[in-house]
Amino acid sequence: MLDSLPTINSLSNEEFKLQAQKIRQQLLLAQRTACQLNRAVIIIVAGLDGAGKGSVVHRLNEWMDARHIDTHAFIEASDEEQSRPFYWRFWRRLPDKGTIGIFFGSWYTQPREAALKFGIGKHALVKNGKAIERFERMLSDDGTVIIKLWFHISSEVQYRQLARKATKNQQNLVVSANAKRAKADYKKTLIIAEKIILETDSDHSPWHIIQAEDKNYRDITAAKYVLDALKNLADNTAPKNKGIPAAGPYQQSPSTALATINLEHALSKKDYKRRLKKYQNRLQNLSWEFYDQKRSVVAVFEGWDAAGKGSSIRRITTAIDPRLYKLLQFAAPTDEECRQHYLWRFWRKLERDGCSTFFDRSWYGRVLVERIEQYATPEQWQRSFEEINQFEQQITDHGTTVLKFWLHISPEEQLRRFELRQQQPHKQYKITDDDWRNREKWQAYEHAVEDMFYHTSTNAAPWTLVSANDKRFARIQVLKTYCKAMEDSLNKG
Amino acid sequence: MLDSLPTINSLSNEEFKLQAQKIRQQLLLAQRTACQLNRAVIIIVAGLDGAGKGSVVHRLNEWMDARHIDTHAFIEASDEEQSRPFYWRFWRRLPDKGTIGIFFGSWYTQPREAALKFGIGKHALVKNGKAIERFERMLSDDGTVIIKLWFHISSEVQYRQLARKATKNQQNLVVSANAKRAKADYKKTLIIAEKIILETDSDHSPWHIIQAEDKNYRDITAAKYVLDALKNLADNTAPKNKGIPAAGPYQQSPSTALATINLEHALSKKDYKRRLKKYQNRLQNLSWEFYDQKRSVVAVFEGWDAAGKGSSIRRITTAIDPRLYKLLQFAAPTDEECRQHYLWRFWRKLERDGCSTFFDRSWYGRVLVERIEQYATPEQWQRSFEEINQFEQQITDHGTTVLKFWLHISPEEQLRRFELRQQQPHKQYKITDDDWRNREKWQAYEHAVEDMFYHTSTNAAPWTLVSANDKRFARIQVLKTYCKAMEDSLNKG
Repeated sequence: MLDSLPTINSLSNEEFKLQAQKIRQQLLLAQRTACQLNRAVIIIVAGLDGAGKGSVVHRLNEWMDARHIDTHAFIEASDEEQSRPFYWRFWRRLPDKGTIGIFFGSWYTQPREAALKFGIGKHALVKNGKAIERFERMLSDDGTVIIKLWFHISSEVQYRQLARKATKNQQNLVVSANAKRAKADYKKTLIIAEKIILETDSDHSPWHIIQAEDKNYRDITAAKYVLDALKNLADNTAPKNKGIPAAGPYQQSPSTALATINLEHALSKKDYKRRLKKYQNRLQNLSWEFYDQKRSVVAVFEGWDAAGKGSSIRRITTAIDPRLYKLLQFAAPTDEECRQHYLWRFWRKLERDGCSTFFDRSWYGRVLVERIEQYATPEQWQRSFEEINQFEQQITDHGTTVLKFWLHISPEEQLRRFELRQQQPHKQYKITDDDWRNREKWQAYEHAVEDMFYHTSTNAAPWTLVSANDKRFARIQVLKTYCKAMEDSLNKG
Repeated sequence: MLDSLPTINSLSNEEFKLQAQKIRQQLLLAQRTACQLNRAVIIIVAGLDGAGKGSVVHRLNEWMDARHIDTHAFIEASDEEQSRPFYWRFWRRLPDKGTIGIFFGSWYTQPREAALKFGIGKHALVKNGKAIERFERMLSDDGTVIIKLWFHISSEVQYRQLARKATKNQQNLVVSANAKRAKADYKKTLIIAEKIILETDSDHSPWHIIQAEDKNYRDITAAKYVLDALKNLADNTAPKNKGIPAAGPYQQSPSTALATINLEHALSKKDYKRRLKKYQNRLQNLSWEFYDQKRSVVAVFEGWDAAGKGSSIRRITTAIDPRLYKLLQFAAPTDEECRQHYLWRFWRKLERDGCSTFFDRSWYGRVLVERIEQYATPEQWQRSFEEINQFEQQITDHGTTVLKFWLHISPEEQLRRFELRQQQPHKQYKITDDDWRNREKWQAYEHAVEDMFYHTSTNAAPWTLVSANDKRFARIQVLKTYCKAMEDSLNKG
């Protein structure tokens, strides 16, 4: 594929000037339209060393309105990036809606380099390719336009460029590269690149391969691809996939999980105190061991209103040094969060290795309250199951333990607790009209919860269904599960 | 001071339980009030190793609503933190309005450790103390409540704690410390701590010294100080300083700088082209040299509407690789930015060493548009001069070059450009009703600009007044100044 590109593609300087003038005006216009349509644009600049990627990035900044472009060079990962899941460094740089991000280096860089260096097999490349395809599909479903450019040159031209032997008007600024090494690796590099390109070439974010030996042709062609994509977006505002998840059309769950929870479980005060002490002691030791080994937990707490999420979390945090965890709660998204994919607000809160994160309600709001209250369209919440699985997979792939608790109570028990709260002056603030309204939608929620279990119970990140009619029993079940998961993680090494 | 604290302060377990119950309820209430009043609270937990600071932090999290508390341990700075001005790591952790940040380690840690390790003299300590005092005053003026707790123990108790020889019920969890080293350094540590405490004990953020040998007494006393401060804030919503800057009451400028700008300057097209090429070549080389040496520039562009800020910036960015700079423009603050001090939105955008930042309008909006349009009160914009100087000082102290350009044109020239813009279809979007309105306030702006020069022209970060009636002349003046500043920085080594 790559080695069969026609090599004679060039533009005279005169022709270049003519075309450049035209394309600049069109680019500016198209950029403004994309901005007005509130679409995010990612331009991925990839290709062979010496192909002039830096110069192209420069050109794009020059030809468009640089005030709405953010250029990111992903060279070395910082320590803050290394100590979080792989995609975190990209999430933090994703362009806001209405802006353009030029990614010089991207999620493609590391897999490619690893393949070249360690000769990782086809299997790993395919796996990486799948992850990338899903990531890009998710962004595309959310309205992001992804433009992927691959710049190709022949081995001879590459050698001349990297050895700084090109004729002056064809020279690219080379930051650092080894001409001989590149020459020796050329064939292998092409094979790997081809594999990745084929694996990740999709309707929603296709690759564009550009013959880059002639600077003029290269820059004009790159600009044309960008222009086409921006124009296309203006013509057709709906994203390409129409949100059909990669896993296929949405399936309803058989709705059986909640019924299996035995709500009769209870613990005596004495038993409770004994076990509480036991598990909290274990937890304290485990949490320092986790810290020493730079491990962490991401724990999600969901459940009915008044099911005791807060007090269960408190039984954990009491046993852990406050430097070793963050407790998070989410109100309505801020305007900065609204300018991004809905998972962005959770990604941005992931802590570094060694510090755990507790979510008192979480990204599952997408398939619970947002589904029921129709803040998300069916298309949006249906595809989010897969997006969530992918998100949690990223976290567990990084070595972090993911725990998800559903605290279950009966409607009768909820009523009892609501009424109790209303009677106690210092707890009245905890109960609002919303709580009563949600209660009326119990059945709809039950249905949504079943769907949630069905679609997001994975091996890597399973749900724990907690019998919570008895608060003491619930707290101990949470603590015990929590300790057990930490021990499993330590044993796995 | 510290060694003359009474040592016999203790509470029986029974007494502790009684007091704890009472204080917890009051703390929760006071916390909710602070949150409703939209005030940010910083609790600084400092003191001797082995005094149980970690346990106190734990206690505060337990006794208050942990969902609105963020605990930050400032241990080692990450590489992202090290490659930015010292205070960046604290700015990024400042609590939002309505929330509490517990700072375990803080801006006090590094100066204290440096003093102990390198024996830095009184002079440096005083200088650090002054910087801290100003930083805290700035936060306090903005409504932040700063509660500073210093936990003291005797040398004997410290040794027992660190060597893990304390009786069980008095043992603190010790993360890492050397008992013998601490014993040897004890006196010196006290002397340094006293100096820093005295230097930074202020009306707006006083120190509270707590005898920490008895755990019960320590926790209750710490909680009481926190409670007092929170209650005090509820009683008195105005910040303590009433915003009188440390430099004294506000002085008007003599208003002479703008008149000194010769607006007759002009360059022929030929001269311009020659010089443009010359300076852009120089700039290109300099910028890679800066990158190699991990240096950067923070450049601010201010000036009248249509003075040519954007096009001047473009003449710089054209010569620099897009990986080496960020170009920033600021619209109205986001809601996340509104929850912080007004300088926060600029701090958060500072790039790492090696990457320069260009501000197309900047923090000077505070003393220009915000002053004229009364978005900021006189008290707010008057004290901001000093806050801005302090901000820029932080940047230059880090080794970054700060450049500030004022692009000056005459009212007649502005009118000409406005009319020209309205005639050109592709430039019409650049001119809005706001521009015409601002134009009517020319005199008020002139006055504000003079004040700005007068108060913020510092040795570290001087203003460059650019004669911009002739665009060509202006661009060359900017480029030349920019190159010169980079060369000076490289020569200084």
